Amino acid sequence: MEAFFNPSSVAVAGASSTAMKLGNVTLANLLRFGYGGKIFAIHPRAGEIMGIPAYPCAREVGERVDVAVGILPRELMLDFLEDCAAADVRNVIVCAGGYSDAGPEGAELQLQLAEAVKGHGMRMMGPNSVGTISIESGFVTSFMTLDPIEPGPISIVAQTGLFAGGLARWVTSTQLFGLCKVASLGNKSDVDEVDILGYLEDDPRTGIIAVYSEGIRDGRSFMEMASRISRTKPIVMLKGGRSEVGGKMTASHTGSLAGMDDVYRGAFNQSGVIPVDSIDMLFDSTKALAYCPLPAGPNLGVVSISGAGTVLAADACARRGLRLPALTEKTLAAAHKGLPAWASIGNPADIWAVTLSNDVEGAYRVILGALAQQDDIHVLIVTFTLVPESEFDGAALLAEMQETYPGKPILACFLGASEVDHKRWFRALEEKGIPVYDSVERCVDAAWALARYAGWLKRSGC
Amino acid sequence: MEAFFNPSSVAVAGASSTAMKLGNVTLANLLRFGYGGKIFAIHPRAGEIMGIPAYPCAREVGERVDVAVGILPRELMLDFLEDCAAADVRNVIVCAGGYSDAGPEGAELQLQLAEAVKGHGMRMMGPNSVGTISIESGFVTSFMTLDPIEPGPISIVAQTGLFAGGLARWVTSTQLFGLCKVASLGNKSDVDEVDILGYLEDDPRTGIIAVYSEGIRDGRSFMEMASRISRTKPIVMLKGGRSEVGGKMTASHTGSLAGMDDVYRGAFNQSGVIPVDSIDMLFDSTKALAYCPLPAGPNLGVVSISGAGTVLAADACARRGLRLPALTEKTLAAAHKGLPAWASIGNPADIWAVTLSNDVEGAYRVILGALAQQDDIHVLIVTFTLVPESEFDGAALLAEMQETYPGKPILACFLGASEVDHKRWFRALEEKGIPVYDSVERCVDAAWALARYAGWLKRSGC
Repeated sequence: MEAFFNPSSVAVAGASSTAMKLGNVTLANLLRFGYGGKIFAIHPRAGEIMGIPAYPCAREVGERVDVAVGILPRELMLDFLEDCAAADVRNVIVCAGGYSDAGPEGAELQLQLAEAVKGHGMRMMGPNSVGTISIESGFVTSFMTLDPIEPGPISIVAQTGLFAGGLARWVTSTQLFGLCKVASLGNKSDVDEVDILGYLEDDPRTGIIAVYSEGIRDGRSFMEMASRISRTKPIVMLKGGRSEVGGKMTASHTGSLAGMDDVYRGAFNQSGVIPVDSIDMLFDSTKALAYCPLPAGPNLGVVSISGAGTVLAADACARRGLRLPALTEKTLAAAHKGLPAWASIGNPADIWAVTLSNDVEGAYRVILGALAQQDDIHVLIVTFTLVPESEFDGAALLAEMQETYPGKPILACFLGASEVDHKRWFRALEEKGIPVYDSVERCVDAAWALARYAGWLKRSGC
Repeated sequence: MEAFFNPSSVAVAGASSTAMKLGNVTLANLLRFGYGGKIFAIHPRAGEIMGIPAYPCAREVGERVDVAVGILPRELMLDFLEDCAAADVRNVIVCAGGYSDAGPEGAELQLQLAEAVKGHGMRMMGPNSVGTISIESGFVTSFMTLDPIEPGPISIVAQTGLFAGGLARWVTSTQLFGLCKVASLGNKSDVDEVDILGYLEDDPRTGIIAVYSEGIRDGRSFMEMASRISRTKPIVMLKGGRSEVGGKMTASHTGSLAGMDDVYRGAFNQSGVIPVDSIDMLFDSTKALAYCPLPAGPNLGVVSISGAGTVLAADACARRGLRLPALTEKTLAAAHKGLPAWASIGNPADIWAVTLSNDVEGAYRVILGALAQQDDIHVLIVTFTLVPESEFDGAALLAEMQETYPGKPILACFLGASEVDHKRWFRALEEKGIPVYDSVERCVDAAWALARYAGWLKRSGC
């Protein structure tokens, strides 16, 4: 798989000198991300594209080509594969769609591709792939224009190209976490999740793996590999096509046969894979795993200046089966120092009463500290309502708390904030390693992902 | 209830000349929002605060006071009520907490308040209220600093003060829709949802009502009123405290006894109230109702340039019990004109194939039009992945489509976008009246809210 992420040389077939053409964007990405290997353009007539030498076919390059990217209509794809085989190119990324994503006729064509690839002893990513991203090598073959991406521990394996396109753009423009490798698998005629997971298992830069899959081909291999990898690197997975209609749709998206929801659920439970419900939750959970220590247990402590925040957090915990332990007498005594004497306090802890007595920071500090010292509270959730009246350095406070209680993850969320305040607090908190969420429910879901993974590790004797 | 939203005069007890003190913020809000009635500050010593005449008590004002706002510690509240009664003030907003939100002792104190209020024939909002907002009269008593709010058709009744604080700040800084009236009910010792709904029923400026409640006191009155209002104005409601622990939390937030989830569900089904799961969904659904025509039926048509968007939309529809009708031969023939011949097409419609043939706008136009003309498709969902390669004027296209098919609501969502593109498209689309959502799931949930309300109206013979 190394050739798909860190090859010595790449040929781009369908390279174009016209801006916004897909074969132009891929070349631009390779240049922008500083890919250090050799790049060859394949084009019927051009002698050079964007300063890159162009050849009419891979055979005429005359140098070793580790991987070739085919950004061509499907009519030209078999010829492209033959050309690659003749030039001894062992790895190809096939971007054309119109195969198993396009009904029985397309599926037949995909079989022809698969036979050609197998016959020549090649490996193929796709068809219907959007390409790959590898930040450390600058090898970015996505045919969607991308801005520079920060390096980070999160690698993504996805059937959809979104993660190598629009979602990568979302990450770079709104998130502080970085990426490591992204593979857009498309129809998975050859290379599939198991291949990529095997590669990422040994990739020292990958710390967390996010998967979007519409159906696993070889369930047993996937489970074995996922169980092994999960012992050292968490795998978070969104299974698309869990409903009947959604399952049918996967057939036309990537030609996958989606399996039953409960079969996947059982498999995930055993193998340590963390199942999520949406793309939001995929990133939310991955971010929590990237930022936070693993908790010693699943129980939550919640502090909120909005009473509604405590009510909604409790509802969200109930949906996820998470427990909010009652406060001990010691905790209660400590917590009461942060609020007016009349205020009732529990878990979740509503600190609204402090609004009238005016030391908001002090209340958060005292009560968070009280909850954090209680042994059977393992994860802390803090909700902030950002209004000028309660302005303080929340990031410094939570960082201090995280340092004092290093084994207890702290997650934050905002319940109402102006856009400017949101940005400012978001950046300050995340720069200190406190993950931030836009709703109580999303925060609780991310905490659940942490607790679930930690629990599986414990049960697995890790 | 008029006095809580449009009084001729108001007295603010606890008025303060110190910036950021709550009694200062309320005065500042009244001034900033251009309240046209008379304002009196109540303060033991000051002669004037922020240019507003101050009096030691309401009795000494010497003019009619329609409503008095008590931003005082609870120890002073009974005296405040007696003063108001002596000054013939008929309506009070009590902001102090520490009552039924603070255990049995607080509940006892709340009973004393209630008795005083009843004995003097007054009406009380609170205790534990954050105040009210009325955009058209500029009567804004919230003690959280607010920026100018656009007028709009959405009124909010909430037990929590969030909607008159942080969430109002979120609306003004990120959303295009406006607000009409906001009531923060707090512990609801006297004025409750039924009172406010009755007022909003006759308020010509209120078109849609959003409710956050932790427990309805008089279920029968609420149901009767909600059924009647729903015939002309949709009511969207988030019930906090649906879980057992969440229900207990409502006791310490606002002293409400939360009822069983299924009791509420049944009541909502009968009365036309649209139940939602989160604050996000409360605003998402309210926005859809504010922007969109009501659909003639519940069935969806989905168009997505990302195949994953079709898969996730189908999964979300299944969770909500929404049907995606199969495309008729006529629709299929029309739709196929927008894509390469080999592309398979269905509902949801995956238009990814156009990426390789390059007329993205054309594909959206042709396929959206095809789905829109099919009779049994009632609501359209369009997902966009915002990358430079597929840039076009999506807002103009959807506005054109909405004009051609005026009875079919169109909702949009983004599946991956940079922050800049997101803002630009969001604004362009919402200015044309197309509501935008940040995920497929949230978009489908909003469509469900539209369909649910339209279905109830139909069944109710409206």
